[in-house]
Order: sequence, then structure tokens, then C-alpha cells
Amino acid sequence: MATLGDIAVSAAFNIVGAFAFLLAFALLRLQPINDRVYFPKWYISGKRSSPRHAGGSFVGKFVNLNVKTYFTFLNWMPQALKMSEAEIIDHAGLDSAVFLRIYLLGLKIFVPMAAVALVVLIPVNVSDGTLYSLNKDLVISNIDKLSISNVRSKSIKFFFHISMQYLFTFWTCCLLYKEYSRVASMRLRFLASQGRRAEQFTVLVRNIPHVSGRSTSDSVESFFSKNHPEHYLCHQAVYNANKFARLVRKRNRLQNWLDYNQLKFERNPEKRRRRKNGFLGLWGEKIDSIDFYKHQIKELDKKLTMERQKVLKDPKAIMPAAFVSFNSRWGAAVCAQTQQSKNPTLWLTKWAPEPRDIYWKNLAIPYVSLTIRRFIISVAVFALIFFYMIPIAFVQSLANLEGLEKVAPFLRPVTELKFIKSFLQGFLPGLALKIFLFALPTILMIMSKVEGYVAKSTLERKAAAKYYYFMLVNVFLGSIIAGTAFQQLRAFLHQSATQIPRTIGVSIPMKATFFITYIMVDGWAGIASEILRLKPLVIFHLKNMFIVKTERDRVKAMDPGSVDFPETLPSLQLYFLLGLVYAVVTPILLPFILVFFAFAYFVYRHQVINVYNQQYESAGAFWPHVHSRIIWSLLISQLLLMGLLSTKKAANSTPLIIVLPILTLAFHNYCKNRFEPAFRKYPLEEAMDKDLEDRPSESDVNLKSFLADAYLHPIFRSFEEVELVEVGVDKSQAHIPSPSGSSSSSSHHDIHHHEDKPSHSVHHHEYEPPSNVYHYKAEVSSNVYEYDTESYHNVYHY
Amino acid sequence: MATLGDIAVSAAFNIVGAFAFLLAFALLRLQPINDRVYFPKWYISGKRSSPRHAGGSFVGKFVNLNVKTYFTFLNWMPQALKMSEAEIIDHAGLDSAVFLRIYLLGLKIFVPMAAVALVVLIPVNVSDGTLYSLNKDLVISNIDKLSISNVRSKSIKFFFHISMQYLFTFWTCCLLYKEYSRVASMRLRFLASQGRRAEQFTVLVRNIPHVSGRSTSDSVESFFSKNHPEHYLCHQAVYNANKFARLVRKRNRLQNWLDYNQLKFERNPEKRRRRKNGFLGLWGEKIDSIDFYKHQIKELDKKLTMERQKVLKDPKAIMPAAFVSFNSRWGAAVCAQTQQSKNPTLWLTKWAPEPRDIYWKNLAIPYVSLTIRRFIISVAVFALIFFYMIPIAFVQSLANLEGLEKVAPFLRPVTELKFIKSFLQGFLPGLALKIFLFALPTILMIMSKVEGYVAKSTLERKAAAKYYYFMLVNVFLGSIIAGTAFQQLRAFLHQSATQIPRTIGVSIPMKATFFITYIMVDGWAGIASEILRLKPLVIFHLKNMFIVKTERDRVKAMDPGSVDFPETLPSLQLYFLLGLVYAVVTPILLPFILVFFAFAYFVYRHQVINVYNQQYESAGAFWPHVHSRIIWSLLISQLLLMGLLSTKKAANSTPLIIVLPILTLAFHNYCKNRFEPAFRKYPLEEAMDKDLEDRPSESDVNLKSFLADAYLHPIFRSFEEVELVEVGVDKSQAHIPSPSGSSSSSSHHDIHHHEDKPSHSVHHHEYEPPSNVYHYKAEVSSNVYEYDTESYHNVYHY
Repeated sequence: MATLGDIAVSAAFNIVGAFAFLLAFALLRLQPINDRVYFPKWYISGKRSSPRHAGGSFVGKFVNLNVKTYFTFLNWMPQALKMSEAEIIDHAGLDSAVFLRIYLLGLKIFVPMAAVALVVLIPVNVSDGTLYSLNKDLVISNIDKLSISNVRSKSIKFFFHISMQYLFTFWTCCLLYKEYSRVASMRLRFLASQGRRAEQFTVLVRNIPHVSGRSTSDSVESFFSKNHPEHYLCHQAVYNANKFARLVRKRNRLQNWLDYNQLKFERNPEKRRRRKNGFLGLWGEKIDSIDFYKHQIKELDKKLTMERQKVLKDPKAIMPAAFVSFNSRWGAAVCAQTQQSKNPTLWLTKWAPEPRDIYWKNLAIPYVSLTIRRFIISVAVFALIFFYMIPIAFVQSLANLEGLEKVAPFLRPVTELKFIKSFLQGFLPGLALKIFLFALPTILMIMSKVEGYVAKSTLERKAAAKYYYFMLVNVFLGSIIAGTAFQQLRAFLHQSATQIPRTIGVSIPMKATFFITYIMVDGWAGIASEILRLKPLVIFHLKNMFIVKTERDRVKAMDPGSVDFPETLPSLQLYFLLGLVYAVVTPILLPFILVFFAFAYFVYRHQVINVYNQQYESAGAFWPHVHSRIIWSLLISQLLLMGLLSTKKAANSTPLIIVLPILTLAFHNYCKNRFEPAFRKYPLEEAMDKDLEDRPSESDVNLKSFLADAYLHPIFRSFEEVELVEVGVDKSQAHIPSPSGSSSSSSHHDIHHHEDKPSHSVHHHEYEPPSNVYHYKAEVSSNVYEYDTESYHNVYHY
Repeated sequence: MATLGDIAVSAAFNIVGAFAFLLAFALLRLQPINDRVYFPKWYISGKRSSPRHAGGSFVGKFVNLNVKTYFTFLNWMPQALKMSEAEIIDHAGLDSAVFLRIYLLGLKIFVPMAAVALVVLIPVNVSDGTLYSLNKDLVISNIDKLSISNVRSKSIKFFFHISMQYLFTFWTCCLLYKEYSRVASMRLRFLASQGRRAEQFTVLVRNIPHVSGRSTSDSVESFFSKNHPEHYLCHQAVYNANKFARLVRKRNRLQNWLDYNQLKFERNPEKRRRRKNGFLGLWGEKIDSIDFYKHQIKELDKKLTMERQKVLKDPKAIMPAAFVSFNSRWGAAVCAQTQQSKNPTLWLTKWAPEPRDIYWKNLAIPYVSLTIRRFIISVAVFALIFFYMIPIAFVQSLANLEGLEKVAPFLRPVTELKFIKSFLQGFLPGLALKIFLFALPTILMIMSKVEGYVAKSTLERKAAAKYYYFMLVNVFLGSIIAGTAFQQLRAFLHQSATQIPRTIGVSIPMKATFFITYIMVDGWAGIASEILRLKPLVIFHLKNMFIVKTERDRVKAMDPGSVDFPETLPSLQLYFLLGLVYAVVTPILLPFILVFFAFAYFVYRHQVINVYNQQYESAGAFWPHVHSRIIWSLLISQLLLMGLLSTKKAANSTPLIIVLPILTLAFHNYCKNRFEPAFRKYPLEEAMDKDLEDRPSESDVNLKSFLADAYLHPIFRSFEEVELVEVGVDKSQAHIPSPSGSSSSSSHHDIHHHEDKPSHSVHHHEYEPPSNVYHYKAEVSSNVYEYDTESYHNVYHY
């Protein structure tokens, strides 16, 4: 058991560590050479094209020589607070703004809670002093004296704790309600304020049945012309271009090597680099590197052209899925929300994600295999959650000094040192866990991809959910109860339903110290390392050294990143859980969480404003998950308190607390009904409002050209340089008002769309994406920050 | 414990009882005087207007004198099988046809299952003979020797049982799949074959927000004109006419008394009946009865007129709900399936039930109170399920002879008689339960009504679900485990998850005898009494004697009834559960269930063809519930077998069986996705097909007049005789093609509906219901079989 002293040492460590990170950040961010690492958002949004603090001299271009700026090295904090919420939404999107609100919500919930709990509960807990009278052999930390453990069994004082639980639940629910209603209205306002966007008019149709002798495109055309005669506009077939995409990635890699070698050659013209042409360049004839890569790229381009032709011509490459566009938001909303076919497993419709948000690779998964994939992955996640604990438990048992001394008796002289002992006990258990958790998000994201979700935002939410379950079982339960998660599961199966909360509840107060160190290691230090951006910093400078030739390359070398939802959301939710569980049990934990929320709020605000560039905009679609997890945290805290009190022989209090989970669930249900549809559906009233607003200024013809290639697979847009052979057919046609297009589309049930359709979905890839769909602005032209390559980077190197 | 002898006595009793019922039925049904009791369906469908076997003489009108017909008294059975399924659908509707298929499904499942189980498992069970070697003090019935209890612990023979469980599960799932797919396609075909019906075009909108200074009608008009401009046709406001309905019922009651007195007077002109005019006719001045009732009715008619005016004029009587009709099925399907308003708790839409199916009283419930009502009722149902057992357990403990002798020692000489002992032990426990269950469906139906569902079909389904839970806990679990349901719940909470199936599983084989008697008492005798229709028989003849004056009165006195879904479905499902649970454990139970299914199939087929007149047509909407309950029965049987085997120390078999529930759940999930939408949603493809089919023959104007009063509250249609003052405005108007109506409704976003709307919903109650909406045909004219009164009878005296 860690004592208060251990905690202090750990806290000191972490504070010093965090401070060191902050200092390093403060120094590094002022250097002009790092400007693109710490302020990439401003470059991307086009508001900055050269470093701010760059001096006139040659050295000044790389190092900040202005001494004054160093004295105000913490001034990023007030700066981060300057931007208003509306400006943040405008600058970084609603997702980021809502994400920041979660930290603010944490502060709103826990500041008053901490104040009340510290003032009321700590005196109550301390005054009883049961633990002083206990056997001294039991190692009790000082922190336990501040916790509920210190209260005598059957004490009347437990009513303080119960009433506090009521108060805290009520307070949390109040704030959650206000927050949900606020976020929902922000989302609706945000969606309403958006201009014309492709996803508002488009529905993703999957499981299109195959009719022999008829192409998928024809089927779609005739089905929607018949069943949505007044609203159907056009559609975009979905291609299985995964092989092509692999070739594109290979080409990008080769291009990087070519650039690298050419740059070397330019700097050192006398020495041409050579490489062996065999396997991995390890053996074979020595040839000139630049020629080698040039040749390779040429070969690959031929392959690419062929593969591309194959994808476009081969009917097997057309998946039974399509993006179907309508001439009004109303029509799309109707199609997305209704059942189309008599067979409910065919013609499945749902809103299309925005084009940036689509994870193209998964569109090629046959719909029938999705159920099996999801089943397999859920089994895999279960296994991961319940067997991953074994190595962690092993390392943690090492950190237990007695265990370590047994395994390695020669370490005894070292571990006997008081300082090192404190360090090991206070720091290592958390660190070991953190290291194990490092690889996890990647694994979980891969699992989510295997499940076959087609939107990046959904993938991230699903990965976040898996990560949360993992943390709940392994970090929360796994730390509270000894043994691996699988052993716990076994134990729970053999325990009665009333026994489980008692088993967990009784160990809760004892683990407060562990969670305090966890909050410091994972929370404080983690956030501090987030702001330093060590990895992007190193990679940027490496790229700058070896590949970057032009300004365009420099922009490509920037890696602004984005809010890492799959990792940050679950840990955030874990802190909410810890805070709510310990608020009544060991209130001394709350200040540590408060520091985390405040610090993280500053850091993420800074990052959102200056660094991150979101890849997609889901308009806060993750909020319902956050909300329901906080509710579940409340429920867990109530159940555990119930269990804890029943071991304290205050079992008569059970009926008092049992009301609380019921009320909480009722509240959750209410919120779900009241607000969740705003995140899942698009009301017809809203769609009609927007349609009426747009109607005077828009015609169907404009809309058709606007939608024509919005959902074209991005690879068909790439390589304008390489291949400019084929000529756009549709888009130019669409601009000429055809007789059928110019007349009002209502009450025309005929099949006038057929005229130019079969080839339509194929031939308009030479055009730039319409600029209102993507956020490339002003100076960073769309040439520089290419959509295609970027998209593939994100998809494959997630 | 009942022995085989007890069972034989009980079986003999029940068989004799059932046979007596059948004989009585065979004799009674041949009498012309009872023709309207046993063949009302033919009168209602207009195919018969006078008794079939009526002889020429005066006596022959009442008693069947043709001796020959008595010899073929069982020929109703082959007659019942003559009608094909298509004819039954045509004759009695799809609900009845699907209901009959459930019994057929029971036979299909259990006939092969019984054959295999009896041939394979009984020899396996008998051969071991563990129970012979046990202590003789334990009273073991002979039936136990045929059950799994007889197999030695750790025996390898349990693999027979496990493989049988696999086989039975597989067989059941196969049949369920085929059945679900068949019922779903029958439903779709039935819906597609229906002519134009009001509910296809109509959506029920609830929670219409109140805008001050604007009537609900105006709000609906402007909201739907705006958001469904091309499809909105008209709407019908919903009135809170519950008080008016109460007065109507009172008037009907008085009218009956008046008729009765007048008839008395006609038969006995010299003696006028008198009654006292005070409270309940117990004191006060003596006055002439006929005058008294005539006066009362006159008074009431005045009140009725006033109340009616009040309902029509008072804006408070208009509920925030409306039936909104569209000009196409497509438009209605879209509106029913989408979210209308930005606030998801307003403007809630769902398909309108067919007019006959609406439970008008509940439309007057404010939507906000529904959540609270449902919560309260679910608590009440929980309490009912878990505390209702106390009196039953008391009576059952009396039926336990030792207990009875203790309470009433003077009965000992009687109970010592072997015959009476067998009777008490074999017959009474089931009967006691049955008597207690008698009042239950009414209570559960009232609870469902309080919950506020607006369709009678939904009410019946919800009542059926409650009844099923009740039977599952109290009949199934309550009979297996001693103690009240509440004690069980308590015990389960304190047991581990793995212990519960063991506790139940171990008692399962011991209770086989109880369930065999239960099947005979509840199943066999219950079905036999169903065909006799004792209650309708008595009531019909009483009415005939006292009230019936004219042919019209005689038709009114007929009570054809309908399939009693809230009671028959749950008991059916209980038999499925018993069959599936005991198939492996005590296969000797299966033949008893088979007899039940076969017998019930004959009886209900006869009743559906000759007696029942369904009040509504839900097109088999109850099927998904039946399907999922059978799946749950499978799951329960698997879990209990697992528990039973683990007590038999065949715990190693657990992994073998644990796969089964997972597969079963996967199958259930698949069926749900594949077939359930056919019962919940209306695909746009289907709607469009029907629309296109109808379009040439129909115009909007016709449709508008057709829909005009389809959803008018039935009381506004009544009392044509009493009140013919007001003049119909809308319907006659609608027949004249108005300028706005005759043009195509598409692309007219203007508010031309406003012209005649505010009064529209009010003034067309003088018209008869359109004959295609209701099933009154040919000879039974709609005058005779009044919609209004009938509907109120059904609603209030359920």
C-alpha cells in the first residue's frame, strides 16, 4: 500500500515532468523552424504562410533571437482562452468545440462536487477514527483515514454519504441535461447554417440485388426512378478499388525515395547514390538509385493505368452499393429513413457520410459478410479484454516490491532505498499499465475496420467504445479486484447478483491511492506530452532534411493531426467514472481529477486552435456516447456505494439507494428520447426549411453538376498529371440545361435520367473536387494539399 | 407426488369431461334454436338467415327432429377441415388463419419430436434404473423412471440427451424459419390484395404542439401542407368524447330495460309493471315502468345533444392528435416512417390502425402522461406477477392431502378413499390454479388500457405479453420451485448466475406429473368448453326471452365473439415451452401436448369458420411475438438442461450445450432482421406499386370523399334517428370537383385546403360508414348491425 508520502513523491515527479514538457514546449514553439509543427492549423487555413517570429538574419529564420518572447513563455494559456466558442466552431468545426465542452463539463461537475465533498465528508470520515483502533499489522495509508473506510460499521454517519450521493447524482444529471440540450441545439444550428453540401442530398444504398443481364447502375436507376420519381436525381456507383489504392500507395512511397535521392544528388552532385536491384536492395547488380526509382515509378504508372481501366470496365469491380442523390434534402431525408424494398435485407439506405468522412476501403465489403464480421470481432474484443490483463498483472506484481525481491534478490540493496522504493511503488504500476495500453488503440481501430463501418467517424466511435470497455474492465475493475479479468469473470459468474457490488465495493476505498497515481501519470503527464508533439516534431524535421524540396513538399510534411477521439474520449470517460465513484468514497481524489480537467482543457484548446486539422466533421455525433457513459458511471458509482455500505452493515440503507439508479435510468431514457434523434435522424421539417431557403437560387441542373462527382472514389481524381486522356462527359453535359433537366422534376415519372446515365458514374474524375466540399482555402491551393494522397495516408496508416 | 395411477385417473376424468362437452355440443348445435349461437359467422357474413335444420312444424323450429343427423354428431370435425387456408383468409381474415397455423406448427414441431424422443430416450432412461436402487422412503412416481432422473450420474448416456437437444433445436428452428417466412409473405400478399382502405393513406399524429391563438386543426393543416406539400390531403381531428360515450352506454342500458318492459306488457297486457322512482328502484313513489324509462331516455337524449354540442364546440375537447391522410400510400408511408419535427417529442407519427381497430378512449390521453402510465403499469405488473402467487400457493398446499388433513382433520375418512385421493391430487392443484387465472386476463387488459395504447390489436398483444410473463413466472417457475414468486426472486438475487439454472433444472423432472395434469385440465377440458360456448348460449337465450322483439334484435343478441388472443396466445406459448423443456427431460409428456394441439386445432378451425367474427384485422401482427417466445422457450430449455446436467455431475457437457443458445440467438437475430420489418414497416416499393395500380382508376377528389369520415369518432355517427338536424357539408362538397381538387396535387404548395377545413372534421356524421371499410354484407344491413353500439360494447365491456 502506498502511503501519503509515496503519493507526494509521485505527484512531485509528475509535476516536474509536466513542467519540463511545458517548458520544452514553450521554448520549441517560439523557434520559427518549428512553427509548422506547433501552428500548422494556421497554415492550412491559409492565415499564415511563413513563421511569425522569424527574424531578418539567416539564423533568425531558424532560431528565435527575440529574448523578450522567452519571458512570456506561458502566455499560450491565456491566448488559448481568447477565442470564443463561435469562433472555434468556425475555425475548427463543431466536433472540436463539443470535444472541448466535455472538459468544461468535467470542471462544472467536479468543482462544486469537490468543494462540498471535501468540506462535508472529510470531517465526517476523519472524526470516526475506526482505522486507528485496528490491528497495526494491516498497512493502512493515511489516505484511507480520509475515506469512508474510516467510518465505523453501522454508523449513522453513512447517511451523510447517502445524501451526498443523492446530491451529486442530482447535480450531475442537471448539468448533463443542460449540456445535452445545448449540444443538440448547437448541432442543429450548425447543420442549418451549413451551405449546400453533398451529404445533405445523398443516401448510401447497400445490398443492391443483382439482376442477371442488368448492371448495378441500371438497377439503381430504375428502382429509384420508380420509387422516388419526384426526387431522384442521380447516383454514383461504388468501385472496389482497393488493389488500385495499394498501387497508389506504393507509388507514393517510391516517389518519396526518388525525391530523397534527387535531393541528395543536388546537394552532393559528385556522388550519385547507387543501390542493388535485388530483394530489398540487399544484393544484385548495382545501379543508379535515381534511375532505379524513376524506372520503377514508370513501371508502376503503367500498371496503375491498366488497373484503373480494369476497375472501370470490369463489372465485378462495381460493388452492390451506390451513393444515390436526390434533388432535395427532403427527398434524401425520406429515402434515408424509410424501408425501400419488400425484402428488408435489400436496398438498405442510410445517410451518406460526408465525402471526406468515407472509409472507401470498407465500401467494398459485401454486405452479407458484415454480420459474421461483427460477430467475430465481438468475440475477439471479448478475448482481448479478458486475456490482455495477464501480462499487465505480471508486470504489476513485479512492481510490488516483495514480489520483485523474490524474483531478483540481488536488487534488494537498491529497492531498500526509501526514495527508489517510493518511486517504484508510486510510479511504476501506472507506467506499466500505460505502456501496455499504448499499442491498444491501433489494435482496436483495426478491429473496428474489420467490422466494416464505412465512415471514419463511426470507426473512431466504435474504436472508442471498445477502448472504453477495455479500460472499464482492465483499468477500473482490474485494479480494484486482484486477479486477471478472466478470473474476475469466473468469480462473478459464481457469485450472486447481490454479492458482486459488495465484492467490488469493499475494495474501492483501498485503491484510491493507485488511481491517484494513475491520474497523475496518465492524465497530467499524458496531457503535457500531448502539447509537446514530440513525434510530429521529429518527423517534420526529418522530412524537412531528406525529402522537402519545394514549398509544396513542406506543406505535405506538416502533420497537424486531429483530436484522437478513439483514445481521448475513453480516458475522459474513465476520469468521469473515477470522479463519480470516489466523490463519496474518497473525496481526496477529486482535486487530482480537477487538475486534469483544467489542464487538459487549456492544452486541447490550444491544440484545437493552433494545431489540429480535423479530417471530417461529424457535427458532434459522439456526444450521445459521452452522455450515456457518464450516466453509466453514475449507475456504477451508485451500485458500488450500495455494495460498500452493505459490507459496512448499513444494509438497511439499500432501499434508500436503490431508488437512485431507477431515477437515473429514467432520466437517461428521457434524455435519449428527447435529444438523441437530433444526432441520428434528419427531421423533415428541417429538410424542408433548408430546401425552401435554397429553392429560389438553385436549379436541378446546378445541383446535378454539383453532386456529379462528390462521391467519386478519390483515386479516380488523382494523377491528373499522369493521365489526361479521358474526357469528361457528364459534368459538361450537366451544365447544358437539357430539356428534361430544365423542367420541374415534380410529376415527371418517366425515365428521362436514363439518357446519359450508364457512363455517368465513370467519366468525370478529371475535375477538382468542388471547393465548398473541402476546407482548402486561399493560399494552400488544392494542388498543394492534395486530397487523394492525404486521404490514402489517413486510411492506411491510421 | 402423483403416481402413474393418479395421472390415469386424472386423464380419465378429463377425457370423460371433454367427451361430455363434445357430446353436449354435438346435441346443442343441431337444434335450430341454437343455430345463431353455434353458427353466428354465417349470419353475419350474410350466407344464412334462418336455421339449417329447422323442420316444418312449430316444434321443428326449436328442436331438431331429424334423427339421422344425431348419428353423425362428430362430423363437425371433418367439416372443419374442409375449408382451405385461402378460403379461411377470405372468410375470417388473416389473423384467424395465422392463429390456426400456430397449432399446426405445434403439431409439425412435436409429432416427429415425440416419435424420436419416445423411441430413443425412453429406452435410454429406463435402462439405467438408478431410481430403483434409491431409498424407498422417497416417493418416486413411475413417470420419473421414464425421465432423465433415472440415468446414473456421470453416465455417458447423457450424450444421447445432448444430441437430442441439438436435433430438437435444429428441427424447431427450421420449422420456425419456414413458418416466419410463410407468414411474412402471407401478410404482404394479404396487404397487397386488399382494396383501397383508409388506413393505407392515414397516419396518426400525436403530440401536436399548441400554438396560442391557433386551433389544432390549423396547426396540422399548415404543418403538413408545408412539410408534405405534394402528398398531404386532409385530416381528421380527434375529440375527447369519453363523457359522451358514457352517456351513450347509459342510454343503451335504459333502452334494453324499456324493451324488456314493453315486451312484458305486450305478452301480459293486463299487468303493467311498476317500479319505484328512487335510488335503484328501491324506494320512492311507484310509477309505471314503461313511462319511467321513456322519460329517462328522453332526458338522456337531451343531455346527449348538449354534450355533443359541447364536444364539437369546445376547443378543449379537441385533443392534440389527428388522423392525417395523404393522397398516396407512398406519402403516408413516408410520413409514418420519418421524424417530422426538430423537437423529436413533437409531431410524432405512426401508421393509423384501421378504423375498426381504434380504441377511441385512449386517444384522449395526453401524450406526456404515457411514459408515467407505462412506468406505473410495469411496476404494477411486476407486483401482480410476484405477489399473486401467495393465495395460489395457499390453495395448492391445501390440495396437498397431508396439509389438508392437518387443517381439517375431520375430512380424513373421506380423503383416505383411494379414488378421492387420486382425484384431489391429480385434479385439484391444476383446477385451483385455473380458477385463480380466470380473473387475470381482464385485469391485465385493464392494465394495458391504462398504459394508453390506441389500437385494440396492440392492447390485446400487450395484455397477452403480460399474461405470458405471469404464466412463465407463476405457472412454470412457480410450479417447479417451491415458495412464492417473491421468495424465488429473493433466492435468485442471492444465487450466482450459474446456480440458478441448476436450482431450476434439478426440479424439472420431478414436476412432469404436475404439468401433465395441468395440460389435461387447462388444455383438453379448456378447449372442449370453448367449443360448447356455454356463456354465449345462456346469454343468447336469456336475451331472446326478455328483450328480442324483432329480427334485428335477434341479430343484436348474437355474440359471435372473436379469437381471444390475450388468453389463447400465452397459453399456447406455455405449451410450446413445456413441450420443448420436457422433450429431452421427460418425453412422456409430449403425447399429452400433441393431443392438445390436435384437438385445439380442430376446435379453433371450427370456431373460426362458424362462430368468431373478428373485430379488427391486424394481418398477423402478433406473429413476431409468437416466434420470439418460442425461441425463448428453446433458450430456457437449453439453459435448464445445462443446469440439470451439471447437477448430474456431467458438468463437462456444459461447453457442448453452451454453443446451442448462442446459435439459437444468432438464428433469432437473423429472423428478426429478415422478417420483422414486414410486420412493422411498409416498404416504399410496395406503396408505390399499389399507388401505380390504383392511379388510373382514382382521383384525389374521390379519395378525399372516401377518407373524409373514415376516422370520425364513431359516436358522431350514431343517433341518426334522434338527431338529423345538422347538414353534411364536406362530403357533398368533396364530390363536386372543386378547382383546387381537380388539378393534380403535386407542386401545389398553396393552402387551398384551408377553404373548407375548420368545419370539415365536424359535420359529416350523418353518413353511413362506407361499406368497404366494414364487413357488413348483404342481408345483415348496416342498419341492423350498428357500428356504434357494437363498438361501444366491445370497448367498455371487454
